[in-house]
Amino acid sequence: MSAQPRFAVILSGCGVFDGTEIHESVLTLLAIDRLGGVYRCYAPDRDQLHVVNHRTGTVVPDETRNVLVESARIARGTITDLAEFDPEECDALILPGGFGAAKNLCGFAIDGPGCAVDAPTERAIRLMLAAKKPIGALCIAPALLARVIGDGIDVTIGNDSGTAAAIDAMGAHHRIAGPGEVVIDATHKIATSPCYMLDSSIGTIATGAENTVRALLTLMGR
Amino acid sequence: MSAQPRFAVILSGCGVFDGTEIHESVLTLLAIDRLGGVYRCYAPDRDQLHVVNHRTGTVVPDETRNVLVESARIARGTITDLAEFDPEECDALILPGGFGAAKNLCGFAIDGPGCAVDAPTERAIRLMLAAKKPIGALCIAPALLARVIGDGIDVTIGNDSGTAAAIDAMGAHHRIAGPGEVVIDATHKIATSPCYMLDSSIGTIATGAENTVRALLTLMGR
Repeated sequence: MSAQPRFAVILSGCGVFDGTEIHESVLTLLAIDRLGGVYRCYAPDRDQLHVVNHRTGTVVPDETRNVLVESARIARGTITDLAEFDPEECDALILPGGFGAAKNLCGFAIDGPGCAVDAPTERAIRLMLAAKKPIGALCIAPALLARVIGDGIDVTIGNDSGTAAAIDAMGAHHRIAGPGEVVIDATHKIATSPCYMLDSSIGTIATGAENTVRALLTLMGR
Repeated sequence: MSAQPRFAVILSGCGVFDGTEIHESVLTLLAIDRLGGVYRCYAPDRDQLHVVNHRTGTVVPDETRNVLVESARIARGTITDLAEFDPEECDALILPGGFGAAKNLCGFAIDGPGCAVDAPTERAIRLMLAAKKPIGALCIAPALLARVIGDGIDVTIGNDSGTAAAIDAMGAHHRIAGPGEVVIDATHKIATSPCYMLDSSIGTIATGAENTVRALLTLMGR
């Protein structure tokens, strides 16, 4: 194990409505740094499902943006194609939320429990499971873990009953959690927190991200 | 004065190379929330000077993005056209950095000390000065304050000698500062911090943003 715990962060664009939720991703990076870790950002090299005008909330017709290129905005240019992900190069994986996790990393936002999953994303999650290294997910991203893993994993997206039912339908087990709380599945080494799936202040998002990173450190034996 | 201190935050796009620096803006919002304040985000309704591919660092030819629309990504959709800015609705103004502050709010990145300034941005800064309410700026944004105000204001952008000389040439007074430090001009009620103008971890950016917000609270008599 390296001197500093190494976190791989999978981004899915740049903006809550068509990509990664920006506050959740930045506050995840902050939590990793403040808790003594180092991070490396990844994203898949594919087109976004949508480009959404975040002022109006409407889909922009005929505009295309690339998930890896837009994610580089959050990573300040230092980002790796998720196809190159190697579980030997990290001690934990974490996925912030935002619609990108359910539009670009998988199709859950549109197709629900039967959705397809982005191949490099599924590969990264499966490699971490096989390596018995911990995985964290925020906001709606736990639905992606439910889709890929199933297997009765305990996860939370807060308290939305429709999403919780869909998570159960994918073979996972949804548990209700409040703002800033983390649900830990010690068997599968998975930690999840609702973040903006609950109406929260940005300070509470920081708490949720920090608690999730702290749980991942515990799950990796630190 | 309202029960909670109210901060107006001026954004300039979404991404360090063509808009607001994302970490600095999110960590400014976090600091405001954690220190008991409330925030309202603003941006000018104008085209960005550039769209930069943040993975490659190159300008994308023939692509146009709007500063207000892209800034809405950081603000999660809740943002106001800067033309509607009213100093009665805030107790302090703060400008995060990123090239957007020097490409979209003014032309400093291209034209240097003689640059033009976005009209709604200049209006907002001048209204705050006239109201004797404090103004904060991070990273390169203090150069914008130097351009608009001049008047011997003390500001910092860290220690870059070329930028410091340009700030002095605009009639302000540059002072060297280290990571996380804040330069306070009590006479003009201005607080500035280098943030990513110095090579810093994201944790140090959070410290710089928090110290700046704390200085603004002191300058408003809280």
